[in-house]
Formats: sequence, structure tokens, C-alpha cells
Amino acid sequence: MMSEKMPFKLLLSHEEAVKIISENIQPIDRVEWVSLDEAFKRVLVEDLIAKHFVPPFDRSAMDGYAVKAEDTFGASSFNPKALVLREVVYAGTVPHETLERGDCTQIATGCSLPEGADAVVMVEFTEKDGENVKVLKPVYPGANISRKGEDIEEGKLVLSQGSYLTSAKVGVLAALGRERVKVYEKPQIVVVPTGSEVCAVGTKLGEGQVYDINSHTLAAIASENGALVTRFKIVPDTHDALEGAINALQDKDMIVVAGGSSVGERDLLNGIIEQLGTVLFHGVQVKPGKPTLFGVVKEKPVFGMPGYPTSCLSNAHLFLIPALRKLARLPPRREEGVKARLAERIVSSSGRKQFLTVQVRNGVAYPVFRHSGAITSMADADGYIVLPTNVDVIKKGDEVTVFLLKE
Amino acid sequence: MMSEKMPFKLLLSHEEAVKIISENIQPIDRVEWVSLDEAFKRVLVEDLIAKHFVPPFDRSAMDGYAVKAEDTFGASSFNPKALVLREVVYAGTVPHETLERGDCTQIATGCSLPEGADAVVMVEFTEKDGENVKVLKPVYPGANISRKGEDIEEGKLVLSQGSYLTSAKVGVLAALGRERVKVYEKPQIVVVPTGSEVCAVGTKLGEGQVYDINSHTLAAIASENGALVTRFKIVPDTHDALEGAINALQDKDMIVVAGGSSVGERDLLNGIIEQLGTVLFHGVQVKPGKPTLFGVVKEKPVFGMPGYPTSCLSNAHLFLIPALRKLARLPPRREEGVKARLAERIVSSSGRKQFLTVQVRNGVAYPVFRHSGAITSMADADGYIVLPTNVDVIKKGDEVTVFLLKE
Repeated sequence: MMSEKMPFKLLLSHEEAVKIISENIQPIDRVEWVSLDEAFKRVLVEDLIAKHFVPPFDRSAMDGYAVKAEDTFGASSFNPKALVLREVVYAGTVPHETLERGDCTQIATGCSLPEGADAVVMVEFTEKDGENVKVLKPVYPGANISRKGEDIEEGKLVLSQGSYLTSAKVGVLAALGRERVKVYEKPQIVVVPTGSEVCAVGTKLGEGQVYDINSHTLAAIASENGALVTRFKIVPDTHDALEGAINALQDKDMIVVAGGSSVGERDLLNGIIEQLGTVLFHGVQVKPGKPTLFGVVKEKPVFGMPGYPTSCLSNAHLFLIPALRKLARLPPRREEGVKARLAERIVSSSGRKQFLTVQVRNGVAYPVFRHSGAITSMADADGYIVLPTNVDVIKKGDEVTVFLLKE
Repeated sequence: MMSEKMPFKLLLSHEEAVKIISENIQPIDRVEWVSLDEAFKRVLVEDLIAKHFVPPFDRSAMDGYAVKAEDTFGASSFNPKALVLREVVYAGTVPHETLERGDCTQIATGCSLPEGADAVVMVEFTEKDGENVKVLKPVYPGANISRKGEDIEEGKLVLSQGSYLTSAKVGVLAALGRERVKVYEKPQIVVVPTGSEVCAVGTKLGEGQVYDINSHTLAAIASENGALVTRFKIVPDTHDALEGAINALQDKDMIVVAGGSSVGERDLLNGIIEQLGTVLFHGVQVKPGKPTLFGVVKEKPVFGMPGYPTSCLSNAHLFLIPALRKLARLPPRREEGVKARLAERIVSSSGRKQFLTVQVRNGVAYPVFRHSGAITSMADADGYIVLPTNVDVIKKGDEVTVFLLKE
């Protein structure tokens, strides 16, 4: 199918397209309970209020002797202070004796402090002598003690609603003894490869056929950005087949149609989305990847990604990842830019904001972009540089910022 | 258990410890076949040689008309060149007619070029007129054509042994039609929580008990860095129990013992590793986290991580992650440093290289480190700043580099 109209009349800027996407994605609100072992990288549904103190008691921060600090004042190697050993507290046991003046309790790191003690002398600064312990160095009150609640106070907010659970935040949940945690469900994304010329991997190519690349790269991108992904069967370029697929997939949280490369096919999707819902944009002033489409059908976002593998993947970085992360309630991806010198002069005359893939070796950025159809343009890249719409040339040796591809 | 000897007599530097780890980790050599859907973020076992060209044929890069370029020379809106339409090639179909002078073939993007054609005129620069097509703009030979093998040439090396499979490299495998791929197995890591005072999450804390934090944070770290992780049951601080666990876990690729915080417990692990294998270091000049232990038992690496949750997690970033990534054959983690102004004066007198956790807000770094026992010291952090051994003070307002915690 092919349109003979001028396509893409109203091209949005990159920033306008990102804004429209952000305004039209509703973060997921389905929730589920998962075990702590499954909580890493998930998103917390509710404020987490501490139900107890961490640590739950005053405890020793060192192996040594619990003492009354004033009993150690003036102690030195030449003038040790002798204390009476009342008790030994190993890891896993608790003290029973209350310390009086002149007493001490041998204590392991992490153990509960005996009543009456207000400091711990490190074992290195003591000598054991039968029933007595000689203290060789004074300590101040509070020395080598972790106070009850020093880490987390009972009743306090420790993690707020929407927190992204890093390893350390998983540690906070563990510190509070949580075995299960309520998180947002991962959004369900379906990637629909299209194109009558497109053939599944593992089968033999017929005449005029090429393998489906885009559903594989997009599935990887979606899984990396918080989604549960399924890949749909390859849909041929007919109105009925594509409309049937869109209708059949309305239980998903987002539909990502992976071109088929031609303008005609994109118009096909455009027509179907206009009929079933709303096309919010079709065409963005970026290169590679102008023909990206974004719309909404029955409140579910639908993307139409360009068919050229590099255009598709490049636009997935620009548009699909922010959409996925908002949907999954993940924090926005942090752009990591490194400075490099350009290895060769580059010229742009596209009139679009251009994303040029490069390899970085020893501070030098070597363009690896071949053309929009070449998957190797992305596979060989460490990152990309951005040529604004109004920049035509960057000279060899100029400093550029390379935005790294992170996976 | 508690030693009364001076512990950690021979402390290594951070760099020496990392070097010893690297020299004593053998990358995994077990392999497995996985489907392309499971290949993302895995590591390729063999050089991948292209078995066919990508694209597999000369094809149109645009919707338009395949032509002999010389037939269009001199064309303009005022002087269109009329060509005879021989055939229409839609996506999924192939051309059958050979073009002669004065002929053209309507063609969709991605379709195989007819014999005799050497260029494509974009549909925007044509007008259809019954059996004829008027060309309004000349094209040069090769215009709007993707050449066979332009992306990947048959017989060429496209991905080398050990390649880390990013989304774009998965795309390369798809472009070659690969449905299955041979990758290195993920190493099997077991995390062994220890400590007689340590209690599993989801149970009620007894007197003097604290929850197991470290096996959860370390399991998250290990899964994020290419491992298949299991958490072992909590092992009490006895020689027999710990030795039994180490012996029982010799089928794993790496054992990570998560303290138990005391020097006594670390000495316990040290003694067991010395007896069963070799202790390569025990104690590193870093803060937090001095007591980290690394050894080898029957060729399997064993880590003893500090018991304090922040020491444990901080040292996991410094020592365990590089070890895991080498074992799993993942590329080394890239450190991402951002510049910030320090919000308050900090003082170090540890004589160790110090890692101080901070939050970054609007270019200002606010220390959030509380103490080594506080998991919130890590959970509240965006990253950390490094104080070298010989630096005692950083002034308020000084520029610092914040290394971001990435997950």
C-alpha cells in the first residue's frame, strides 16, 4: 500500500513529542504483593512507616567490654583500670546482669548492651587477667555504642509511596523484617511486528523477505524498562489484519507496533488509530526516525515505530523508554554524557534534530552511523551525539558530548 | 566468639584488593543455548559470522518508483519526464519485469529492486497519469537504494566471542535470522547469611536479635550483575555450622558469606577458609568496611562481607561487583561521576580510603552517611564521594565528584 499524498506534513519537535507522550501516559495503578526476594527494582505502593526501631536496642558497635565510662577515666597502659568481669555476651545471647561501678561485661559486636553500661572499650585496649579486665584507654559515654533507633526510628516514614526499590532500599525493608511488600504491577506491553515482507527468525527467508528485527530489539528495551513483554505474531500490511491485532490486544497496557518500513504502512496504522481512537502525533523532526506515531485507543497508548531497525531502536530510546518508565512508575532515565573529540567532520542537512551513533575510544568519538536501515549502526555504537536542527557541520577535532547507550 | 589478638594486621589498599580479586576469578566457561528472546544481556560464546547478506538484496529505501537514473536527468516540475509504469511491487511481493529505458516500477520501501533499475524516485517527486508516471526531479544512480549487504556482508565477522548482547546486538542476531544463540551460563552464586543474633525476615524478633539485611541486599547486587542467586539459610556463629555450609556449597561458582558483624565471626570464617583453602586477603584500607575477606576454596572464590549493612553493601560495590562481572564475563561497570559542591565540611581521620554517601540536589552534595550500621546511609544516597587516605578535610562549597549508585 502506498499513499501518494505528501506524508508527515505536521512534524513535531523532539521535545514536543516527549511532552505529548508524557501527558498521555497514565502510570499503572494495579498492585500486587511480592516476596522480598522479588522486590528489587520494583516500585513501592504505600508509604512505609517503621513498626519498630532499628537497631531494636542499644548495642555494642565493637567487640570488647561494656563499661560505665567514668570507670575508665584516667586509664592508660601505665595505669590500667581493673574492672570485674560480670558476664560474657556472645552473638545471639543477651545480658542478664546490671552493671554497677567497677563492673564490666564482655560483649560481641551487635549484642544488646547490659543495663547500667554507657560505653564499650574495644578489646584491643584491654587485657584479661583472670576475673579482672584491665582497661588501657579511657572511653567517653556513648563510645562504641549503636543507639536503639539510630538507623530507623519507630513510627517514622522510611520509604515513601512510589519509591524505586534499589538494593539498599530492599535492605531497609529487610531491616524492618518485611517478608512481603506491595508493589505496582509491571505493565504488560505487546510488541507487534508488521510487514508483509517480514519473516520470523528461525525460518528460511523467501524471495524479497527480511527477518523481523524490531520486535526483538523493542522487547529487550521494554523488558529493561520495567515491562512484562510479549511479542505478537508478524502481522501483514492489510487494514483488517492490523486492525484485528489492535482490537485483540486491548487487554494490554501499551501496544507497540514495530514497522514495516514504508510510509504506506504507517498511513495504514494512522488510519486505524484515527478510526479506533486518537492519533496524537505522526512524524517527529528527528533523524533517524521521522515516522514515529503515537496515539491512544480506549485509553491505552499505542506506538507506531519506524520500520528501519536503527530508526526504530533510536526512536525507542527517545520516545518509548520515557513512556515505558512513566507507565511503570520508574524514575526517568539519567542521561550520561561524556566529552570526546570528533574523529572526522560530519555534515547534516536534514533540517531535523539528528542523533548520530559513535564509538568512543580514548576520548575520540568515531561515527559508526551507516544508514537508518543498518542495525549495525546501533550495535557498534557506545552512544550518540546530537546535532541540533540548526547545526549543519561539526568539524574534526571539535569537542562533542556523547550520550552513552546504557544497558 | 572473640579474638583478643589485634585483628587486620595487614590491610591492603583498595586497588591491591581489586587486583587480587581480578587475578583469582576465572570467567565462567559453561555454556548453554537460549532462544533469542532470552539472549538480551547475555554473553556470546563464539564469533558470529554472517551466513547471508543483510539486506539480502538491493532494495528500495523509499516509497516511490524504481527507474534508470539517466531517464530522470533534466526532469523538473516544468519539464517532467514521463515513464511507462511496468509493474507495482507491494511489501511482501517481488518484481518480475526487467526495466528498459523509459520504464519504471512502482515500489514500496524495503522491496527488492527490479532488474535494470539503478535508482528510486520518491513518490513526492512524481505524478501518476494513467499508464504513465511523470518524474519531477532527477535522481543520481544509487539514489534511495539500500544495497545488498550494506548493513552486514556475508562471511564477515559481525559479533565477536564474548560480546555482551545489548538490544542492538540482539537486533544483529535477529537480522541474521538466529532463533537460538549459544551464551555463557549465568554463574551460580550463593549468599550465606551468618550470625547467631540474626533472624529471618517475616519472623518475630527475639531478644537481642536483628533481621537479616545483608543476604537480601547482596542477592539484589548479584542478580543485577549477571548471577543466578540463591540465599542460604542463616548460619549460626559456630565453626562446625559455617564449615558445614562452605563444604555443602562447593557446587556453586562463588560463595558470599554475609556477616555477622564481629571480628570474632570474621576470624571464624578466616580460620575455616585457611583450613579448606587459601585466604587471599582479610582486611582492606577502606571505610566503611575494613573487614572484607576474600579467599579460594577448591578453586571457587569465597567472599566474607562485613556484617554492618552499609559496610557490606558499600564493599559489595567495591569488591563483589567487579568479581561477579568478571565471573559472568560482563563488561566492567562504568563509573559515572557528576560534579557537585559539598553542602557541609567533612572530616576524615580514619587513615583509610573513605567512601561517603551523599544525596545530590541541584548540584549540591549533602552527606547522608550516618554510620556503618545504618542501612539508611545507603538507601538515602544517590552516590558517594571518595576521600583518599591522605585527605582529612573537604571544605563546605568545595567541588567534589559524586560517583552515582546505578541500579
